[in-house]
Amino acid sequence: MAEPKDNLLMEKIVSLCKRRGFIYQSSEIYGGINGFWDYGPLGAELKRNVKELWWNDMIRQRDNVVGLEATIIMSPQIWKASGHVDTFSDPMIDCKTCKGRFRADQTNEIACPQKPSKMVSECHGEKTSPRAFNLMFQTYVGPVQDDSAIAYLRPETAQAIFAQFKNVLETSRQKVPFGIAQVGKAFRNEVTPRNYTFRSREFEQMELEFFIKPDEVVEAIESVKSSVSGVQPESSELKTENLKLETSANWGWREWHKYWVEERIAFYESIGLPRTTLEEYWQKPEELAHYAKACVDILFKFPFGTQELEGIAARSDFDLSQHERFSGKPMGVFDEELRAAWPKLDEARKTGLSRRYFEARLKYLTKMGVETAKAEEEAKEDAAGLAKGQYVPHVIEPSAGVDRLILALICNAYSEVTETDDKGKSETRVILKFHPRVAPIKVAVLPLLKNKHELVKKAQEVRDLLRPWMNVFYDDGGSIGRRYARQDEAGTPFCVTIDFDTLGEKPELKDTVTIRYRDDGKQERLAIGELLNWLLPKIR
Amino acid sequence: MAEPKDNLLMEKIVSLCKRRGFIYQSSEIYGGINGFWDYGPLGAELKRNVKELWWNDMIRQRDNVVGLEATIIMSPQIWKASGHVDTFSDPMIDCKTCKGRFRADQTNEIACPQKPSKMVSECHGEKTSPRAFNLMFQTYVGPVQDDSAIAYLRPETAQAIFAQFKNVLETSRQKVPFGIAQVGKAFRNEVTPRNYTFRSREFEQMELEFFIKPDEVVEAIESVKSSVSGVQPESSELKTENLKLETSANWGWREWHKYWVEERIAFYESIGLPRTTLEEYWQKPEELAHYAKACVDILFKFPFGTQELEGIAARSDFDLSQHERFSGKPMGVFDEELRAAWPKLDEARKTGLSRRYFEARLKYLTKMGVETAKAEEEAKEDAAGLAKGQYVPHVIEPSAGVDRLILALICNAYSEVTETDDKGKSETRVILKFHPRVAPIKVAVLPLLKNKHELVKKAQEVRDLLRPWMNVFYDDGGSIGRRYARQDEAGTPFCVTIDFDTLGEKPELKDTVTIRYRDDGKQERLAIGELLNWLLPKIR
Repeated sequence: MAEPKDNLLMEKIVSLCKRRGFIYQSSEIYGGINGFWDYGPLGAELKRNVKELWWNDMIRQRDNVVGLEATIIMSPQIWKASGHVDTFSDPMIDCKTCKGRFRADQTNEIACPQKPSKMVSECHGEKTSPRAFNLMFQTYVGPVQDDSAIAYLRPETAQAIFAQFKNVLETSRQKVPFGIAQVGKAFRNEVTPRNYTFRSREFEQMELEFFIKPDEVVEAIESVKSSVSGVQPESSELKTENLKLETSANWGWREWHKYWVEERIAFYESIGLPRTTLEEYWQKPEELAHYAKACVDILFKFPFGTQELEGIAARSDFDLSQHERFSGKPMGVFDEELRAAWPKLDEARKTGLSRRYFEARLKYLTKMGVETAKAEEEAKEDAAGLAKGQYVPHVIEPSAGVDRLILALICNAYSEVTETDDKGKSETRVILKFHPRVAPIKVAVLPLLKNKHELVKKAQEVRDLLRPWMNVFYDDGGSIGRRYARQDEAGTPFCVTIDFDTLGEKPELKDTVTIRYRDDGKQERLAIGELLNWLLPKIR
Repeated sequence: MAEPKDNLLMEKIVSLCKRRGFIYQSSEIYGGINGFWDYGPLGAELKRNVKELWWNDMIRQRDNVVGLEATIIMSPQIWKASGHVDTFSDPMIDCKTCKGRFRADQTNEIACPQKPSKMVSECHGEKTSPRAFNLMFQTYVGPVQDDSAIAYLRPETAQAIFAQFKNVLETSRQKVPFGIAQVGKAFRNEVTPRNYTFRSREFEQMELEFFIKPDEVVEAIESVKSSVSGVQPESSELKTENLKLETSANWGWREWHKYWVEERIAFYESIGLPRTTLEEYWQKPEELAHYAKACVDILFKFPFGTQELEGIAARSDFDLSQHERFSGKPMGVFDEELRAAWPKLDEARKTGLSRRYFEARLKYLTKMGVETAKAEEEAKEDAAGLAKGQYVPHVIEPSAGVDRLILALICNAYSEVTETDDKGKSETRVILKFHPRVAPIKVAVLPLLKNKHELVKKAQEVRDLLRPWMNVFYDDGGSIGRRYARQDEAGTPFCVTIDFDTLGEKPELKDTVTIRYRDDGKQERLAIGELLNWLLPKIR
């Protein structure tokens, strides 16, 4: 159980993040507010880059995923349907003596506020029995603060996607399988926020809900197809050609789930988290939620332990079904391919597929407390829909936390180098080895000297040449060595130095600059005219 | 007072936004939630583009502005300092008879819930006297819901910038004048949300706080400079050369305020709002907040009236001073140029500048209720700081609403065209004439026919060529005319059609495509190899 923890490293990272403006405590001048963190200038750029890369990878580079931007405050009915109102809670006990409130499962770890030498579980205070404490932040919408005005800050972005599923389906020219993705803030009133920004009360998520056909539907369509020989490839298959991995419109949940696990790991690798820093954890059957078919956690080896970056769950049709039942609005889709295939199935096949579909629906309805006779009737009706081409889509959900990814990128990038100068004095300094794609600053432009007008002017020309294409930092203050060191600490992959050779002191070097690499300090010479084309492919 | 309103146009816009997936009502399947709106696939892309363009224009293209991303929930002390806890409210009355609650200034406009033929002001219900209703959404942070746990959803993004001013100053290598910018959600529990997304309860802001030297400081430095002849241009002036308008580190508030008004209008023009759709409204002295020196509203001519897109305020040192007083943490800066200049001033100048600084500080402190003797003492101390190079920066605040800008862009883009076909049948359809920079989709790639494998294959090659660089929509469904019309309605500036000539039916046209322009339907022929370079400058 005991994992290696590197508290010293974590302290250094926290200190660097503050010192260089990656992360500050929220409201620091007022003593802070527990569980809330702000991103400073470098942190805000890093976070933007990551979110932009995710959006691009998940939506803009794909034909079959579209974006959504929903509100944080939604109808409270959504959280009843999702189960959050009833079950998104931690058990808490109150101490009648000290008036403290504690997580019931942490009384062995928390010191008594009145007698800190004892744990809460050992002290003499009279405790209540555990009660559920809901983790959703609650507020009131409108001028009257009564029960009908209660609303919640969303504890996840996913539910908005389910609630708008039909609107998106009807307005975006998509057909199942397709996905809806969203990036945005979510809030959980964690009793014990911890591990820096890893578990905070306000955080950001990047979630995709990828809607797929139930396996029964896939099998119905595929078994008809395979009985027809010599078919031409269909455009629905061609359509997905440009995805990095081949996909098929008629995959079952296992294929889609595996596909998204691989896609997501590939994404992490593409932004600079080596495969060796990641772990896959496949949840055991007994760990899964009752509606889930599988869930894989992608973990990163943080200095404080190996912890989850993202979960990729096969959630069946649970979410859409819940909203269908709670809103009374149909969440099913019509599938022409299924409707056309069904009559061509033999009777045994029809019965078998209907039976399986019926049983899955019955299991869900019963689990939700629907009375048996009614559940059987409903499940039967649902199964009868197959023949008409109707079903409620299933979903694969890759759900990632932005803030913990930012922290993982910083932890992974953190490295130290010790250098000894001519006088034998050695100094240890930090290099943040970000992948150029995520680095807050892509290139620093540095005139060798500040007080030489020609150097400054030329450097500013170079800055203005690059700036429309990437985030450029211009710096003319201090020795060139110190400026390099500052950029290393900010994670800037390239420095461009304008010196007297640039101005033509050595005629053969006129209008060339020095490019210095962050990771090894190596330098090379490049013509200004080639600079943009040299840099662009490296940072994209 | 009466403005021309175009309700029919507004209805058409609302309908289009829903139909094409720009904007949906939040939680629509549950009957919605008043004052909350979601962005669908096209709306989410449009909004991302606008925010990205603002971030790029305000931060990445400038040496003297940096970004911040702070939390929505902050220490409640921040809202005490800012005045929001005490004064951010509407006056409300309760009706003891019907239990309704109404804005006291709207009782003539709101019908009585029990007797809708009468207005609230005329009905017989017994009313309370008006009470202040705070517009901030309130919640509790942590497990105990008592007064010490109260927190608010931020009603604006600006205050986080002030609260983190010193952290940013100390970690970002900036000196006054410089700015901190932020984009993010804000919340106001409006009693009467209205005009579609224009005034909603959850919205997004793009705010810059640009910190400048007080005029007394500028005058001290400049009067010493002007007495020295033959000075070389300083690098601080050179540094700003690449800004679109020339700036100077030693401008007073009037110059900076004017500069930002012009910059912001130029921004709106650059994303497709013509100058003629905008108005400037300079607030009259009696309209200004007591601490403000000037405020300009930039208005857009919406179908429902001419309304504010952005306010650009010169807010003096009010905000930083308030946080200094409430947090007890110094918010002043040290200015080496001022410290060096001060001893060189003649005595009359020193006295005059100190006096003015003293009086401004005294006015502020007295207004804030600081007792006279104490206020005088403090103001004197503040003025004495000038000689040591110390002062609290003033601020210019361009503060824009994202959602109303999105609505302005859609209203401005909306146009209709009526076409008559060969059979004399005429049809009116919508074209959204977005500037290509903000358009959700930059280019649609369309194979002439869906069932010709070679056309589809070539079209997908073109899609994959463009996609890494821009948002591409691939569509092979329906007649080419219908597909063009769909893209016009989505605001896509260019369609690229792959036809048999592309495949070489006419050998001289092999590997060329048709480009169709959205706004006039004109078409031209272009080689695939030139496509990317032709498109890129048009969409950036």
